[in-house]
Amino acid sequence: MDNVLAVDIGGTRFRAGLFDQSGRRLDVVEGETTRSGGRDWMLEQVAARSRELVARSSAPVKACGVSFGGPVDFQKQCVRSLHVPGWDGFELARWARDTFGLPCLVDNDANAGALGEFRFGAGRGTHSMFYMTLSTGVGGGVVHGGKICHGRDSLAGEIGHIPVSDSGVACVCGATGCLESFCSGTAIAKRAREWASRRPESAARLIELCEGDAEKITARAVAIAAAEGDPIALEIVNETAQWLARALLFVIRILNPDRIVLGGGVALAGKVLLEPLHEAMLPMASPNLPSTTEVVLAELENYSPLYGAAALAMDQSS
Amino acid sequence: MDNVLAVDIGGTRFRAGLFDQSGRRLDVVEGETTRSGGRDWMLEQVAARSRELVARSSAPVKACGVSFGGPVDFQKQCVRSLHVPGWDGFELARWARDTFGLPCLVDNDANAGALGEFRFGAGRGTHSMFYMTLSTGVGGGVVHGGKICHGRDSLAGEIGHIPVSDSGVACVCGATGCLESFCSGTAIAKRAREWASRRPESAARLIELCEGDAEKITARAVAIAAAEGDPIALEIVNETAQWLARALLFVIRILNPDRIVLGGGVALAGKVLLEPLHEAMLPMASPNLPSTTEVVLAELENYSPLYGAAALAMDQSS
Repeated sequence: MDNVLAVDIGGTRFRAGLFDQSGRRLDVVEGETTRSGGRDWMLEQVAARSRELVARSSAPVKACGVSFGGPVDFQKQCVRSLHVPGWDGFELARWARDTFGLPCLVDNDANAGALGEFRFGAGRGTHSMFYMTLSTGVGGGVVHGGKICHGRDSLAGEIGHIPVSDSGVACVCGATGCLESFCSGTAIAKRAREWASRRPESAARLIELCEGDAEKITARAVAIAAAEGDPIALEIVNETAQWLARALLFVIRILNPDRIVLGGGVALAGKVLLEPLHEAMLPMASPNLPSTTEVVLAELENYSPLYGAAALAMDQSS
Repeated sequence: MDNVLAVDIGGTRFRAGLFDQSGRRLDVVEGETTRSGGRDWMLEQVAARSRELVARSSAPVKACGVSFGGPVDFQKQCVRSLHVPGWDGFELARWARDTFGLPCLVDNDANAGALGEFRFGAGRGTHSMFYMTLSTGVGGGVVHGGKICHGRDSLAGEIGHIPVSDSGVACVCGATGCLESFCSGTAIAKRAREWASRRPESAARLIELCEGDAEKITARAVAIAAAEGDPIALEIVNETAQWLARALLFVIRILNPDRIVLGGGVALAGKVLLEPLHEAMLPMASPNLPSTTEVVLAELENYSPLYGAAALAMDQSS
């Protein structure tokens, strides 16, 4: 049986993996993607580690799939990143084809995560699925009838940038009141830090978890403290759950998918987040429109996009 | 060439139509569906008028499609209306099969409207489309890859029941703050009537359009007055456009369809509604996520669901 190469290029780390055609993960390598190195330096790292993997493969490697942690024009198979210099318009799939001599498809990490969970994770057996990734940012992907829906401008699933509030918090996308500015890991950490600076005594546990430095509080620390029952951390998680519940209700009303799968680093908090989320969704639901859409956690955790990249590769090699 | 029978059962009127296999409307009859008559009385009217049509058909009638103005369980092909006695659980498709001796499929009017516009109206040539009907209520339908997405509970497209406000206006669905309670024809008329009772002098034109009776003001009168430039009517339309813009942005972020088509009675207001809607969407959009999803008016006007019923029929007779 042939193998495929999967690459996941994120904002801070990259991963490359070898998978067999049944989706079994055979081998993974990781590395850092420091932005200061620039695009070409980063791609050299990715290429070098990926070549090592391919060289170690016990079966021929027939195709490649790439998950990219930023906007991707799927039709044109190129990156559309406006924030990181050197990436906008870059033909990432062509680069991978030229570098590895393999057919390649690229998609953004939210769509790749959706595809990964659909084929190999918590979305197996569904006809329609929505994947929401809660990480540094908030993204999403729509699977319908076994395929990713990209939409006219490759923007389908961009749930991080729906307006959920009039409060006018500025978002990186240039709009205000976006879900991402309330629910991302960045937003959660920021809220905890604000709390710690205003009332350090109430945020003692959070500060303790972060080397005693209120400025270093992370979303991960909030999740840990919430799991321990820390009142401030729980309040922040509950507030986040309220925003998320509203956004997921939009998804249910518009798509009514079989399942909504929550992935990304923040979702690793697990039931600390999932339980208040389920609770927050109950009173918002319409009694006369009962929906059975399930809301569950991702099964592939940080590897959802890498598995999705493998699926992209497998679809070309069969 | 064979013909098909299309039936559209709405809250106040029903229509039956004969179409040829190319979607040409050959013949239409209409009737009232007064609720007080009850289900069986209403169905007798529909059956009688439809049989007349079939008898007049110059070609064999091979199949039937039904659009129903209320919730439909598409998988089970039955009605789920909780409000009107006698309808809940009624197997409408089976009734039509037994009554006309034709294969039949039934769907709710928003999905039928979506299918009608996709195949024969403003959605032609798209891959993905969202249809939003603004009428007594607010509904919607999702077309992807040429097919209606029904969702797990036949609730996909139920955009009327997304929460858009914390203000807590009660909705017929049992939830609060739903889009429908701000943007339906009913809501528009109610706001105009409130205005007229508080400040009759400012609502003079609206009252004049409705037999001099403030209690009889309709959404249609608001549209007419707004087209004439009446300030109060324009304010109500602009407010409605703000709510709609937000809801359509949700659709764009989640589905990024090729086109959003606005249908239903309220959308007959035309550019009086469409222009403020386009204006309201501009400042809400994310500058860094430019979408080219078009927002246009339905082409089949009040007949979108009837054309959709014809499409349902055609899909069974080919």
